[in-house]
Amino acid sequence: MEAFSDGVFAVAITVLVFGLRPTGNGTLTQQLLHSWPQYLAYVVSFITIGIMWMNHHTILAHVARVDRPLLVLNLLLLMGVVAIPFPTALVAEHLQHKGASATAAAVTYGLVMIAISFGFAGLWIYVVTHAPSLGASLPPEALRSSIPGFTGGLIAYVVGTLIALISPLAAVIIYGALGVYYLFEHLPSPSSEAEPDPADG
Amino acid sequence: MEAFSDGVFAVAITVLVFGLRPTGNGTLTQQLLHSWPQYLAYVVSFITIGIMWMNHHTILAHVARVDRPLLVLNLLLLMGVVAIPFPTALVAEHLQHKGASATAAAVTYGLVMIAISFGFAGLWIYVVTHAPSLGASLPPEALRSSIPGFTGGLIAYVVGTLIALISPLAAVIIYGALGVYYLFEHLPSPSSEAEPDPADG
Amino acid sequence: MEAFSDGVFAVAITVLVFGLRPTGNGTLTQQLLHSWPQYLAYVVSFITIGIMWMNHHTILAHVARVDRPLLVLNLLLLMGVVAIPFPTALVAEHLQHKGASATAAAVTYGLVMIAISFGFAGLWIYVVTHAPSLGASLPPEALRSSIPGFTGGLIAYVVGTLIALISPLAAVIIYGALGVYYLFEHLPSPSSEAEPDPADG
Amino acid sequence: MEAFSDGVFAVAITVLVFGLRPTGNGTLTQQLLHSWPQYLAYVVSFITIGIMWMNHHTILAHVARVDRPLLVLNLLLLMGVVAIPFPTALVAEHLQHKGASATAAAVTYGLVMIAISFGFAGLWIYVVTHAPSLGASLPPEALRSSIPGFTGGLIAYVVGTLIALISPLAAVIIYGALGVYYLFEHLPSPSSEAEPDPADG
Repeated sequence: MEAFSDGVFAVAITVLVFGLRPTGNGTLTQQLLHSWPQYLAYVVSFITIGIMWMNHHTILAHVARVDRPLLVLNLLLLMGVVAIPFPTALVAEHLQHKGASATAAAVTYGLVMIAISFGFAGLWIYVVTHAPSLGASLPPEALRSSIPGFTGGLIAYVVGTLIALISPLAAVIIYGALGVYYLFEHLPSPSSEAEPDPADG
Repeated sequence: MEAFSDGVFAVAITVLVFGLRPTGNGTLTQQLLHSWPQYLAYVVSFITIGIMWMNHHTILAHVARVDRPLLVLNLLLLMGVVAIPFPTALVAEHLQHKGASATAAAVTYGLVMIAISFGFAGLWIYVVTHAPSLGASLPPEALRSSIPGFTGGLIAYVVGTLIALISPLAAVIIYGALGVYYLFEHLPSPSSEAEPDPADG
Repeated sequence: MEAFSDGVFAVAITVLVFGLRPTGNGTLTQQLLHSWPQYLAYVVSFITIGIMWMNHHTILAHVARVDRPLLVLNLLLLMGVVAIPFPTALVAEHLQHKGASATAAAVTYGLVMIAISFGFAGLWIYVVTHAPSLGASLPPEALRSSIPGFTGGLIAYVVGTLIALISPLAAVIIYGALGVYYLFEHLPSPSSEAEPDPADG
Repeated sequence: MEAFSDGVFAVAITVLVFGLRPTGNGTLTQQLLHSWPQYLAYVVSFITIGIMWMNHHTILAHVARVDRPLLVLNLLLLMGVVAIPFPTALVAEHLQHKGASATAAAVTYGLVMIAISFGFAGLWIYVVTHAPSLGASLPPEALRSSIPGFTGGLIAYVVGTLIALISPLAAVIIYGALGVYYLFEHLPSPSSEAEPDPADG
């Protein structure tokens, strides 16, 4: 399952490059400068998918055995991750258009992120609640202690989506910040003795 | 072989995102709402490829050695799986057009699924009938007991394709339901002691 | 090296699906029937890349260690393999246009195949001539015994490219037949005891 | 981490084929001959990504354990590598247009390469300075001895980018030569006893 998931993450993060191409009028230099929302959307989505991959990896590292429900939950999560280039392209194209289309693009981005947050929560809750049968060594407290971090991230994506109604650009910056947030608010590592994590120290 | 196949499944499932882009007239919000057949086609094909990957994995998990005929049968199966984004795009674009083009799109989708069903049947029959030389521990009864499930799925895809002549939308929903059907009508797992499957319990 | 190469083959074979889309005038059904060169080009290139992957795998299975020259030769080979979707798209688009453009498309396809044949020959010759330092157990006779098969394939691709000047369609069919030829004219397997190959029996 | 990175490199190198398609006026043969900047850009970027993959592999082969900062530095490096098809397409399209647009394309290519050079330097410096906690057996001198090679390459990319202001074509050829330079100016191999490297002999 991990090889397949890694492949999906790798392809999804790489196809983001198709969102980069000069648009608008004028010389090529003017077009390249004018296309800054593409670069912003590329960076935000690249960091987001990359950090999602890390956290996905951390979740699966707890698991020694895989069952069908876990595969299905993983598939539903990947369905959201694979979709990310879609709202990324919307934001890249419409962020500069004042008004309703920029808002629609940023709201769509937020809705995809909210769906993915539920996907991650579902996968993690399943792993923790089925720890013994999955060969995981997680105590039930692991779930409770990770709930605030997950819930906080989900609420922040909802707030970001609401802010998109007022300022689409601010919302996109919030989405990028949330990617970085998940870098630090990470799950318990599977074997903290074997892999000391300097970020914790 | 498994790494290559996993990579092909991972890329095929990820390129489905290219089928998502706003079409039609009006504001971006109107376009996004108008593009619902794209989301339906995305979800149906994503689930279908994902569950095909799981069943492909289950088949290969029985095999300890690989020979040339198996590689060729696997390649023919992948030729069908890789093609899925093609009828997916047809359905996404034409499902809303009343009449012949929606029918042609949904029939094409069904024909690809029928071809893939034959590919899976061929791969599975080869594995079961050559179990000793492939290092598989499958008894010959495994084939007989899995025939009803496979045949049922194939007949259902044929029925779905015929229904596409009357109602393309109903056919697409049937294709989605068949993806879920194959989730439950699964093959004998290779090592049921080592990997207890809660879906069976 | 093998994981990277497998990934490249997997992506190159999967992007062939982008060559499938209805073209021409008339109803969707007419367009789908009219697009038969796309399906032909898809099948020929899919089989070609798939069997190239198998033979690539067989070559690398001989090698226990990897050095820089081998990596570079492998990279040059992959540069040809990755290019295959390009002449595939040319053939798919121009095969029905009578005259010079169909010829140009089929000749380009043949030239890419000739380049890849040299790439395979280079990789194989390097492996055989450096067998001891690569940890391969190949006797020097392995090279001599495989030369006729390789040379035959190369000459056949040159002949196919020349035939493209007269009949592009015949050339494309020859390219497909050559893919199948390489399926049977295969290299010595690395461990014939461990993996009995029924195709030889 | 390596499987994910390998996947990203494999996809990034394969999507370069999308930059190949006949452009311009005239017969298909004339268009194919006229599109030579596409082939040049394809070859330069293919070699560049391929050799970057090799050096990336060499760096990671030193590392026995992975921590969060290493994952983040790796992600930032991949953000540059994945972007390469973007300036490749710019160069392919604009190299023949005399004047400002060819310059803008070649400068953009150089800027991406400079960013990637910093990414590689950051990853390598982190590995060397955190060798004990990453389980690497690198002495601190390894860093000092590799600085001249890295610095030389970075300065050469800056020079190439400046030359792009005068001759975009010359700059692109320099970029290709730099890819080959990094093939020879390589990092200390992780286990020189186990994998004798003929390129050093």
